[in-house]
Amino acid sequence: MRRKEFEIMNASETEQFLQEMSFGVLGTTHEDGWPELTPLNFVYCNNQIYFHGSIAGRKMKNIKAEQKVTFSVAKEYSIIPSYFTDAKLACPATAFFKSVLIKGEAAILTDLSEKAEALAAFMKKLQPEGGYAPIDPADPDYAGNLKSTSVVRIHIRELTAKYKFGQNKKADEFHQVTEQLEQRHTELDIQTLAMMEAFCPHHQKKDDNQA
Amino acid sequence: MRRKEFEIMNASETEQFLQEMSFGVLGTTHEDGWPELTPLNFVYCNNQIYFHGSIAGRKMKNIKAEQKVTFSVAKEYSIIPSYFTDAKLACPATAFFKSVLIKGEAAILTDLSEKAEALAAFMKKLQPEGGYAPIDPADPDYAGNLKSTSVVRIHIRELTAKYKFGQNKKADEFHQVTEQLEQRHTELDIQTLAMMEAFCPHHQKKDDNQA
Repeated sequence: MRRKEFEIMNASETEQFLQEMSFGVLGTTHEDGWPELTPLNFVYCNNQIYFHGSIAGRKMKNIKAEQKVTFSVAKEYSIIPSYFTDAKLACPATAFFKSVLIKGEAAILTDLSEKAEALAAFMKKLQPEGGYAPIDPADPDYAGNLKSTSVVRIHIRELTAKYKFGQNKKADEFHQVTEQLEQRHTELDIQTLAMMEAFCPHHQKKDDNQA
Repeated sequence: MRRKEFEIMNASETEQFLQEMSFGVLGTTHEDGWPELTPLNFVYCNNQIYFHGSIAGRKMKNIKAEQKVTFSVAKEYSIIPSYFTDAKLACPATAFFKSVLIKGEAAILTDLSEKAEALAAFMKKLQPEGGYAPIDPADPDYAGNLKSTSVVRIHIRELTAKYKFGQNKKADEFHQVTEQLEQRHTELDIQTLAMMEAFCPHHQKKDDNQA
């Protein structure tokens, strides 16, 4: 995944992807030396990542000891069988995907207004239809809950966004994949084809030249 | 997520989930002190996790320096809006999920037969329909590829499997959620309802007693 041709998402595509994806995986460091991974819901807002959790949870303990955290958001698109492009070898088998990797410093918020603001953004993303009273520290029904919930902000130091939609393939292989996905035509294949078209302009250009 | 009531998956359910899920997130430790997260396809086989990647990749470099790795496989089911159970507060909003967390030691395989065997299991899982020649180190078309691909085995030290399908909710709230999911009735809601039924026997039992 270190290959340069996969690093082609721009800022607004990245933001759209982070808005569309409801959960990611948080990586913290556990004192036993193993990375700790926690899948969780999140919101990307003001160029920061926010999530919440129990004050007594293990991830909060880890964050108190080590602020360097990593956050991964990934969506797998179509699995591409080897025989789409190779009649014999298994090697070309792959999966197309979108992936964002964030490294940053985590801070557990203490200011109730900031916590309320982050949770409001979180709710707006994950429950856009509403159906709840505004999250307000002055509302006694919310005040206790706001105090007893940990809200964490990741200050982003590095964000890497990657796509894999066949852009590393030669034009003829790219078209073989396209044709076979059109034939298989699952719901995910249809999404994948749209991404292949959107994000592989150099292939489209090549075809124009060949036509 | 540290709460005990979420830890209710048995071994065969866990195995089925790991078979059903095509990708997970690998956590390694980078020399810069940040956990490194890599989404990747995997196979669970012989009570080990196997994946492959480029020899020159960053995860391989990390593994050579530190064998303690973590692997997370998670599927998000329905998002449960707060108003399913609370007319005012946003607090009950949640998402149901299945999640498996593995801690183990990673080893980069060197034996070509073992690499071929792991990749065969990997292909059998991700391309069950076949359509490729058996992966055989004696086949000259495969030999070079087998040498140039890194295959990693995670020896599992600890596996934690968690479900959240409302089993922490009181019976009346559990039924409110069930009813609302039946009404909303997306494809994911239907899957979620099946899981709620399968994995919340204590609630079903309670209902039987109440009936």
